[in-house]
Amino acid sequence: MTRHSGRSADQLRPVSFVRGFTEHAEGSVLVSFGGTRVLCNATVEERVPGWRRDSGAGWLTAEYGMLPRATHGRSRREAAQGKQSGRTLEIQRLIGRSLRACVDLEALAGCTITIDCDVLQADGGTRTASITGGYVALVDALAKLRKQRKLKKEPLFGQIAAVSVGIVNGAPVLDLDYVEDSSAETDLNVVMNEAGGFVEVQGTAEGHAFRRDELDSMLGLASKGISELIAAQRAALEG
Amino acid sequence: MTRHSGRSADQLRPVSFVRGFTEHAEGSVLVSFGGTRVLCNATVEERVPGWRRDSGAGWLTAEYGMLPRATHGRSRREAAQGKQSGRTLEIQRLIGRSLRACVDLEALAGCTITIDCDVLQADGGTRTASITGGYVALVDALAKLRKQRKLKKEPLFGQIAAVSVGIVNGAPVLDLDYVEDSSAETDLNVVMNEAGGFVEVQGTAEGHAFRRDELDSMLGLASKGISELIAAQRAALEG
Amino acid sequence: MTRHSGRSADQLRPVSFVRGFTEHAEGSVLVSFGGTRVLCNATVEERVPGWRRDSGAGWLTAEYGMLPRATHGRSRREAAQGKQSGRTLEIQRLIGRSLRACVDLEALAGCTITIDCDVLQADGGTRTASITGGYVALVDALAKLRKQRKLKKEPLFGQIAAVSVGIVNGAPVLDLDYVEDSSAETDLNVVMNEAGGFVEVQGTAEGHAFRRDELDSMLGLASKGISELIAAQRAALEG
Amino acid sequence: MTRHSGRSADQLRPVSFVRGFTEHAEGSVLVSFGGTRVLCNATVEERVPGWRRDSGAGWLTAEYGMLPRATHGRSRREAAQGKQSGRTLEIQRLIGRSLRACVDLEALAGCTITIDCDVLQADGGTRTASITGGYVALVDALAKLRKQRKLKKEPLFGQIAAVSVGIVNGAPVLDLDYVEDSSAETDLNVVMNEAGGFVEVQGTAEGHAFRRDELDSMLGLASKGISELIAAQRAALEG
Amino acid sequence: MTRHSGRSADQLRPVSFVRGFTEHAEGSVLVSFGGTRVLCNATVEERVPGWRRDSGAGWLTAEYGMLPRATHGRSRREAAQGKQSGRTLEIQRLIGRSLRACVDLEALAGCTITIDCDVLQADGGTRTASITGGYVALVDALAKLRKQRKLKKEPLFGQIAAVSVGIVNGAPVLDLDYVEDSSAETDLNVVMNEAGGFVEVQGTAEGHAFRRDELDSMLGLASKGISELIAAQRAALEG
Amino acid sequence: MTRHSGRSADQLRPVSFVRGFTEHAEGSVLVSFGGTRVLCNATVEERVPGWRRDSGAGWLTAEYGMLPRATHGRSRREAAQGKQSGRTLEIQRLIGRSLRACVDLEALAGCTITIDCDVLQADGGTRTASITGGYVALVDALAKLRKQRKLKKEPLFGQIAAVSVGIVNGAPVLDLDYVEDSSAETDLNVVMNEAGGFVEVQGTAEGHAFRRDELDSMLGLASKGISELIAAQRAALEG
Repeated sequence: MTRHSGRSADQLRPVSFVRGFTEHAEGSVLVSFGGTRVLCNATVEERVPGWRRDSGAGWLTAEYGMLPRATHGRSRREAAQGKQSGRTLEIQRLIGRSLRACVDLEALAGCTITIDCDVLQADGGTRTASITGGYVALVDALAKLRKQRKLKKEPLFGQIAAVSVGIVNGAPVLDLDYVEDSSAETDLNVVMNEAGGFVEVQGTAEGHAFRRDELDSMLGLASKGISELIAAQRAALEG
Repeated sequence: MTRHSGRSADQLRPVSFVRGFTEHAEGSVLVSFGGTRVLCNATVEERVPGWRRDSGAGWLTAEYGMLPRATHGRSRREAAQGKQSGRTLEIQRLIGRSLRACVDLEALAGCTITIDCDVLQADGGTRTASITGGYVALVDALAKLRKQRKLKKEPLFGQIAAVSVGIVNGAPVLDLDYVEDSSAETDLNVVMNEAGGFVEVQGTAEGHAFRRDELDSMLGLASKGISELIAAQRAALEG
Repeated sequence: MTRHSGRSADQLRPVSFVRGFTEHAEGSVLVSFGGTRVLCNATVEERVPGWRRDSGAGWLTAEYGMLPRATHGRSRREAAQGKQSGRTLEIQRLIGRSLRACVDLEALAGCTITIDCDVLQADGGTRTASITGGYVALVDALAKLRKQRKLKKEPLFGQIAAVSVGIVNGAPVLDLDYVEDSSAETDLNVVMNEAGGFVEVQGTAEGHAFRRDELDSMLGLASKGISELIAAQRAALEG
Repeated sequence: MTRHSGRSADQLRPVSFVRGFTEHAEGSVLVSFGGTRVLCNATVEERVPGWRRDSGAGWLTAEYGMLPRATHGRSRREAAQGKQSGRTLEIQRLIGRSLRACVDLEALAGCTITIDCDVLQADGGTRTASITGGYVALVDALAKLRKQRKLKKEPLFGQIAAVSVGIVNGAPVLDLDYVEDSSAETDLNVVMNEAGGFVEVQGTAEGHAFRRDELDSMLGLASKGISELIAAQRAALEG
Repeated sequence: MTRHSGRSADQLRPVSFVRGFTEHAEGSVLVSFGGTRVLCNATVEERVPGWRRDSGAGWLTAEYGMLPRATHGRSRREAAQGKQSGRTLEIQRLIGRSLRACVDLEALAGCTITIDCDVLQADGGTRTASITGGYVALVDALAKLRKQRKLKKEPLFGQIAAVSVGIVNGAPVLDLDYVEDSSAETDLNVVMNEAGGFVEVQGTAEGHAFRRDELDSMLGLASKGISELIAAQRAALEG
Repeated sequence: MTRHSGRSADQLRPVSFVRGFTEHAEGSVLVSFGGTRVLCNATVEERVPGWRRDSGAGWLTAEYGMLPRATHGRSRREAAQGKQSGRTLEIQRLIGRSLRACVDLEALAGCTITIDCDVLQADGGTRTASITGGYVALVDALAKLRKQRKLKKEPLFGQIAAVSVGIVNGAPVLDLDYVEDSSAETDLNVVMNEAGGFVEVQGTAEGHAFRRDELDSMLGLASKGISELIAAQRAALEG
């Protein structure tokens, strides 16, 4: 079997991180997974949501959006529609949960970090690119807080990246693009940390139910892909 | 380790299905997973959503709601709030996808089946109870269509059930109740068919990232639980 | 004239109250007026709405909802529609006003009681069943407060029940079911207290305008029906 | 007992109807009940709501609004709030039902008449003034249709007026103004036709439950008031 | 060229101000520019919006609405639609900005003045009539504050009026009515103060782009018209 | 007087257009006016809004949005707020009107062109950059239609650009950045075509009312700036 892109089954698309893509955000990263390009902006604000106020701890949350023409056809602008779709809410909840998994919220006392992930161009895997790029933006924002000596305790205790895997034409493949995603029999998004621990596993059978051995293969591919993404994040942060 | 309820790690809560719980719906099932009670009503309508019209096929969708006082404290009524929460949308999308996995939409030509899952009382696992009870309501609704000779082709080609598993106090356990869910380190919802194939796998690390062997144990427990639920559904449908 | 159900003109449908229908609410009553089944949950919260804050008094309010498939055909879910219909708002305002008529809000100082009335199955008279069942849930909730010694003063000073009457096929009848309601020429909802005083009277001519003598007959029927409902509530509360 | 305004118990406030108050509407009437001034505009459109389309019949509906500063303090603009209040919906449903009671919808085939009632100044009784003035606007709009020979059949078969009555300081009084309304123990809105038939009766105990004899007195006052309003409408229409 | 109304190119429509048109508002003015009639109510409230709270200063804002049948055909009620249109928001922002240009917000400390402009009848120029009439209502409201000695410092430091000008049939004309507005090649709204200074200039080419000399002519006409409106406001306020 | 940026009073910021910034849109241009960067995507769809259907003509419209962290502080996401602000609606209406001024809608028969302007980074003048960049995206989209021979008639008949001018520290200046905009006494947005005709003129006095000679100076600056932008657009389109 060959992939339409010529990639091998366990090959990621070219990944890049442009740090400081915009000027105002505490962390601003344009992440690309092949043709998927997401602008991840991390904002630090010295306030917490009402329901967190008594806890003394801080908060980290995420919002996700897609520019109307990020996709092949134009999708309607959610602001004009008057609400965010179920898909959008689901994705931004996933991004928030994933990135909270590497942060000590107690150490953020009094602060909220918001990770805005806006998809400029979509070619499959926008949620995994958002998590992976969002992590880099988060690190940059925390560095700014650290420099300003606003952190009494280090909040960052891990590294987070995400990738999609799936069964396409009967074979497990890594990092699906839009064409593959559209025809995948199974679609699995995996979020892991730098130690190989699972943070989120979300798999859906699109065509037939998938077997345990298929799941095992996909998890293996995800694990390989994420270790490469973890390395790419480090390279970008050291660059 | 013992569970606060005295259950063993691989033990489901008592499960029951009351078919015909209300009179009007084509399928109406009150499902109980211990203290969790969900009313699942299946409605058949001879119309399809606009975007399906040209396909010739039918559609199956689900909606989910929680009565304001299904929970310990009162939650605000979504109808009064003016919108469904992200959690609600996420759950009803999951129920719909899961039940579509056992139905041939072509065979439903011209019809939409809506599965309304309304939680009367919540004690953990409302989404998995909804899927498991929704399946029984769906079967009853299809039986009615079959009796009325409105089906040219059989749409039902499988059986679907769901259960939650998790890591509580360091140990994998099956079918978490509210108390366990609140303190779980990892929470995994699994949807499978009668052949042991996976339809949905959604796992979230709440405390620490979970290891591959923990995931394996949880999948094993889920598999056992679901085969019991599949049997319970059959018994209820034959009863 | 005979009624399609075989009931005499002044005969109620079988009425029942299942107390403690769900576990979490301070008062939880499943009320049935024949085929109409409404779950009435009373919640006590130690806070008052903003506009009541300065008054020192408490508050009692109600919310009403209908499960989508409580009715013959499926009605759209209000939470998904993004708003409550005019009918819903009208009914929940009526329930709230009616039950406030037996409660001393001063004595509820600092507390809000919310009566959630959710229709599981509709067969006419859902608003009157809601009021009549809501009263029983309210009494149970207040008993809990009394036991916890949270009441300095007794807030309950009366008993409230409600019934519908109407002109069907030219004759006044008591407690209309859905079939009668659909063909009624006049529809009158009456809320009264245990002393026979009127709390709400809401009559609408559906076909022709009704005469004063017709109104008089209907009020007479309502009065008889409500005294039976008052007795049934007492029996349920003593049971 | 004397009323603060010096009126006798069975005395209406000065009533006036200014026909043709605005130019564009098919019927445009500024109705005054004392200090309450409502602009009632009747619009005829050659279309019916979707759900009426197959019936062949026409439709009549009403909308109600209050200018933000019609009242003593400023109330928030509903358009800016993003929704109509329960009170507004309740009132506009009442106006629509009341005026449909004098119109043969079959005869309006293909047309919708909308009665917009906008309160310019409020001093109690805005809903009864709206119905009473709305009737005059409706007659003017139908006259225009008749003149244009767009009516095959006469749709108007009755005359409708409305008034409020109540118990104030223990005594039944007719046509309450704001001061009386605020302190009323009972508030009853009555809609009747020219033959003395009841179209709507909506009574609410504000303080104590009202007795049957109080209801009887109030209905008597309403009947007297409405016959005067019916005469005033006629005079205005002939003027 | 002659105008369809017989007016000369630089002639305003008859302008009138009815002060005290309603009773409750601190300032209430019915302004007419020919067939355009707008009710402008000024409300004074002793509170400021949240975001102004720390400033110590007061605030002035405006809201605009059009009764559904102010226009030739009926437009949908914004409150029923659930939102204000872009046009409405644009106009009310313009009215607010324009009137803030003659008021010292510091001097209004602690108070918000809201100018509600509700169009009873529309015949072109509703926004300029709103500003011109709103000014008169504002002056009346401030007079009331002055009389109550609630002002430590005089807030009013200028006079504001507005008019529309345009190119119709190739010629610049003053104060367009609906017929002219509909066929105008260019439409320019001008807000000025009593000293001839510009507060707002908003011009739009409807047909072809307009030339600098056309703009100059229009500004000249506007200037003449506004000085007449300024005089008319003064006459009304002295009257 | 010197500007904080060192620019002369009549000097634009560096302007650039990156065509083909994203892949899917028919026209995709990243426009920069100094630190202001707006992604302008033009979409062609073969359908027209309902209200245009009978006209036979096509339509051109625009939507505008600002990424939450385009600004110094984070602004709330409009999609999450559930509505677009008045400012957003005003700007997108302006962009649409401006670009319709160079397009023959008849020639677009059956097609709608949507110009999405999303601000990635804001430093003043986002609406004028949107119009100027939107024009380039529009030209690219029309070129694609022309190449596909979908145009029977040429729709483009002019060139449109826009710039802001203002009075800062008492002196008229061209193309205000954020710092200047915040302290401007007057702010004027001007849209012109390649022949020097005015399409839109929108001026607001922020501090004091502006005089006629100030307006004249500002219009002169705008005219100079726009002729440079027109040249820059041409260079980009030929590039």
